[in-house]
Amino acid sequence: MKLSDIAKLVDGEIVGEGNVDIRQVAKIEEAGPGDITFLANLKYKKYVVTTLASAVLVSKDLPLAEFAQRRKALSFVVVPDPYRSFVRLIDTFQPASAGLKGIHPSAVIAPSALVDADAAVGAFVAIGVGCRIGAGAEVHEGTIIGDGAEVGEGTILYPNVSVREGCRIGSRVIIHSGTVIGSDGFGFAPKPDGTYEKIPQRGIVVIEDDVEIGANCAIDRATIGETRIGKGVKLDNLIQIAHNVVISENTVIAAQSGVSGSTKVGKNCSLGGQVGLTGHIQIADQTKIGAQSGVGKSITESGKTYFGYPAREVRETLRIEAALVQLPALVGQVRELTNRVQELEKSLRPRKTRKKK
Amino acid sequence: MKLSDIAKLVDGEIVGEGNVDIRQVAKIEEAGPGDITFLANLKYKKYVVTTLASAVLVSKDLPLAEFAQRRKALSFVVVPDPYRSFVRLIDTFQPASAGLKGIHPSAVIAPSALVDADAAVGAFVAIGVGCRIGAGAEVHEGTIIGDGAEVGEGTILYPNVSVREGCRIGSRVIIHSGTVIGSDGFGFAPKPDGTYEKIPQRGIVVIEDDVEIGANCAIDRATIGETRIGKGVKLDNLIQIAHNVVISENTVIAAQSGVSGSTKVGKNCSLGGQVGLTGHIQIADQTKIGAQSGVGKSITESGKTYFGYPAREVRETLRIEAALVQLPALVGQVRELTNRVQELEKSLRPRKTRKKK
Amino acid sequence: MKLSDIAKLVDGEIVGEGNVDIRQVAKIEEAGPGDITFLANLKYKKYVVTTLASAVLVSKDLPLAEFAQRRKALSFVVVPDPYRSFVRLIDTFQPASAGLKGIHPSAVIAPSALVDADAAVGAFVAIGVGCRIGAGAEVHEGTIIGDGAEVGEGTILYPNVSVREGCRIGSRVIIHSGTVIGSDGFGFAPKPDGTYEKIPQRGIVVIEDDVEIGANCAIDRATIGETRIGKGVKLDNLIQIAHNVVISENTVIAAQSGVSGSTKVGKNCSLGGQVGLTGHIQIADQTKIGAQSGVGKSITESGKTYFGYPAREVRETLRIEAALVQLPALVGQVRELTNRVQELEKSLRPRKTRKKK
Repeated sequence: MKLSDIAKLVDGEIVGEGNVDIRQVAKIEEAGPGDITFLANLKYKKYVVTTLASAVLVSKDLPLAEFAQRRKALSFVVVPDPYRSFVRLIDTFQPASAGLKGIHPSAVIAPSALVDADAAVGAFVAIGVGCRIGAGAEVHEGTIIGDGAEVGEGTILYPNVSVREGCRIGSRVIIHSGTVIGSDGFGFAPKPDGTYEKIPQRGIVVIEDDVEIGANCAIDRATIGETRIGKGVKLDNLIQIAHNVVISENTVIAAQSGVSGSTKVGKNCSLGGQVGLTGHIQIADQTKIGAQSGVGKSITESGKTYFGYPAREVRETLRIEAALVQLPALVGQVRELTNRVQELEKSLRPRKTRKKK
Repeated sequence: MKLSDIAKLVDGEIVGEGNVDIRQVAKIEEAGPGDITFLANLKYKKYVVTTLASAVLVSKDLPLAEFAQRRKALSFVVVPDPYRSFVRLIDTFQPASAGLKGIHPSAVIAPSALVDADAAVGAFVAIGVGCRIGAGAEVHEGTIIGDGAEVGEGTILYPNVSVREGCRIGSRVIIHSGTVIGSDGFGFAPKPDGTYEKIPQRGIVVIEDDVEIGANCAIDRATIGETRIGKGVKLDNLIQIAHNVVISENTVIAAQSGVSGSTKVGKNCSLGGQVGLTGHIQIADQTKIGAQSGVGKSITESGKTYFGYPAREVRETLRIEAALVQLPALVGQVRELTNRVQELEKSLRPRKTRKKK
Repeated sequence: MKLSDIAKLVDGEIVGEGNVDIRQVAKIEEAGPGDITFLANLKYKKYVVTTLASAVLVSKDLPLAEFAQRRKALSFVVVPDPYRSFVRLIDTFQPASAGLKGIHPSAVIAPSALVDADAAVGAFVAIGVGCRIGAGAEVHEGTIIGDGAEVGEGTILYPNVSVREGCRIGSRVIIHSGTVIGSDGFGFAPKPDGTYEKIPQRGIVVIEDDVEIGANCAIDRATIGETRIGKGVKLDNLIQIAHNVVISENTVIAAQSGVSGSTKVGKNCSLGGQVGLTGHIQIADQTKIGAQSGVGKSITESGKTYFGYPAREVRETLRIEAALVQLPALVGQVRELTNRVQELEKSLRPRKTRKKK
């Protein structure tokens, strides 16, 4: 594809040679001749000098003259948002693999299940009694859908997902392999003899539209009522969502984080990786929580950033961190000060021995 | 169902109107008209005033007169243990879904496997050579059971569980979807050239009776001998149990915790979420370990509570935490004190310059 | 098997009775009559006195005379490397279970897939269009291999693994149950309305030769290009590897650790359990990182040991840890010092009141 055609596609302006052939997209550090790449963050502009790419998508903010002089062989396409234009080119050069089509003859579908004529069902899929699978949905190989569960339009369940009975998954949801939706919540009542009695877990999981859930997550069904993943929420891999949790819309959670039972996370929050939230708390909208933090109390004011174990407002954690580095020296300073004060006390009361406990 | 009938079922005494119709169970914050809920913890008694429920299970400890006056439309059922009575009503209003029945024709069962006539086997289940599946056991869709493995009576393996060869699972065990029993322990001997040689992992996993294991856990087989999960142990989701670990009876472990190789956890312990235990240590009976703690040494005295990274007895961790908040100020105080001491030293020895290193 | 035969097998020298019958291998603490065990670490030599084993593999470093006298019934086999000899005996007494053989008739293999005549494919396996499965490979029950993926010679995929389209797995690789290779990387571009747009994830995962990956791991495909797991890398269970990560050869990572996007881990590193690495950093070769550490910055010097949250060089973390224990006392000491300095100031300037802010 000629660079001039690419420029038209992304509505950009060429600085340099438009007749060059572009064969693929690549990251700026890895790109070679024939590749087009992008520069979104000016922090990385040094790579413009070293990249072997044939073309770079850039914004108006890049002082092009400077670079164009040094890199005669390199062409530029100036666009309003280089990253977004690059994402569009990914779709052009590396189109998505064809989705699943048709109903595989090995699939076991209960006669009472309503599978839309336009849905696709892979090999070794089991779909239980009374399920509904929407138009354009793809249920990939080895995925098991329990009785009465619902899967919305255009939703993709990748291979080996387990959806337990009665759970409801919205439209345009993506669930990656190995994830479990609707396993029993973790609830046991201690008995006097030290053993535990299982508390029945009869609620469901509701996953709203436009959610994406990574690989090997576990989202437990509610004891009663619902565990709810709000519209547009994005969960990374290996995340634990306990019973009766609510994750509100457009919140993003990175890998290996866990949310304990009945906690409610607000809208548009972002949690880093390996974060833990205790149970029965509320996290205000637009809260940011740094990686590996442990949150033990509700966060009531929205828009704040928390970090640490235990999590505190980020400034406080950073102040403590900075002081912590000085702590070993501080121990020595206090010891020295104590000696000096003792000396002073002695010289002031030279004949009396100061009593110390 | 009339409230009067419910009162009989839970052996309770009605205060208010017994003729009201109850349609379902709900949590006190979420209950609406026609719902019955419960109050187990007096801390939440404010909800008795605001709940829209038609009836509340309460204990004798609630000062009923006070509330009965304010809430004419609300009826009470006084029972010895409101929570336990509520759990019973969950079973009444939301009965468990029918378990799996029969042997699905797609299942692949080795001729030498002994599957009890009263066990159920779902679609796409594979059961290996010489396996035994007990009466009343349910092996759900997509679950794979390796050669020689055993599954006890009444045990439920939910969809997409993997049980590797030779492992033994007791009776009335519940294993949730995606969990892996008997994967190889993580053992490698370093070679002089920097590569590793795999140490054969030929032991098994033994899961005793009445254990429940959450979704997407990994329980490794022993190098030689057994990895053992004791009677009545409850494991939440995404837990790692390494080779040759022993978890003793009635211990409860919350999600995303990990126990390293050859560690032995005592009886009736409880571990919070995201806890890590190092290898080759012993944890005494009835130890409690707070969420996200890291335990690097054996805990020898039973009944203590540990917390933190590294884990210390909870009181010590809390004292350090409290001091930590004061640390940034302390750094300033020590600096100021140093100045003041220097001033004092000067005024005492005005003509001599104190030597400092 | 006679001990004398074992001695020949491991090329060792018997001290004691060679005619004794050995029935199995066991750990020294658990061994009973008829068992052979080993002593590799002299720290555990006390067990030589108490073990019920019939024989112990020992090195020349053990002062045998001392023990032989006290344990008449115990025989010794002196070898250069007792642990390695023991591993060999595990293979003798507990041989590996027979691998998978043949192609199960229930497997669904695309006509265009090239499955070597000497590869084995289990029940309910799906192999997509254009896949290649090498000689001696074992694809166990319930494992799903997406279109165009490749599996090298002698590689074992245990039950219920998911390999997504286009990923390439080398030779002699072992992947344990439940692991997902090639799920989408976690990439979303925020939109002005607070929702997110999915960034296409069109790269692949490349797993080089001789890698072992534990159970229920998630290894995401690259946005563009590759996520790469280098030759000889060993990953434990429940590990998260994000998009475009590179783990270089012979690095070992313990369970539940996570590596964020585009981070590059060097060769021969070792990461403890539950470690987190932030994105876009580089970890130098031969770095060791302690369990539960959080690494937020590149580590540029090779061969160092890091530990803590945030991770610092181990000595620094230990110094801070040691000081931290003294911190609560330090707060008291500073308070006391402040009082004493105030007293001194008063006695020096008895008539003037010192001004304090």
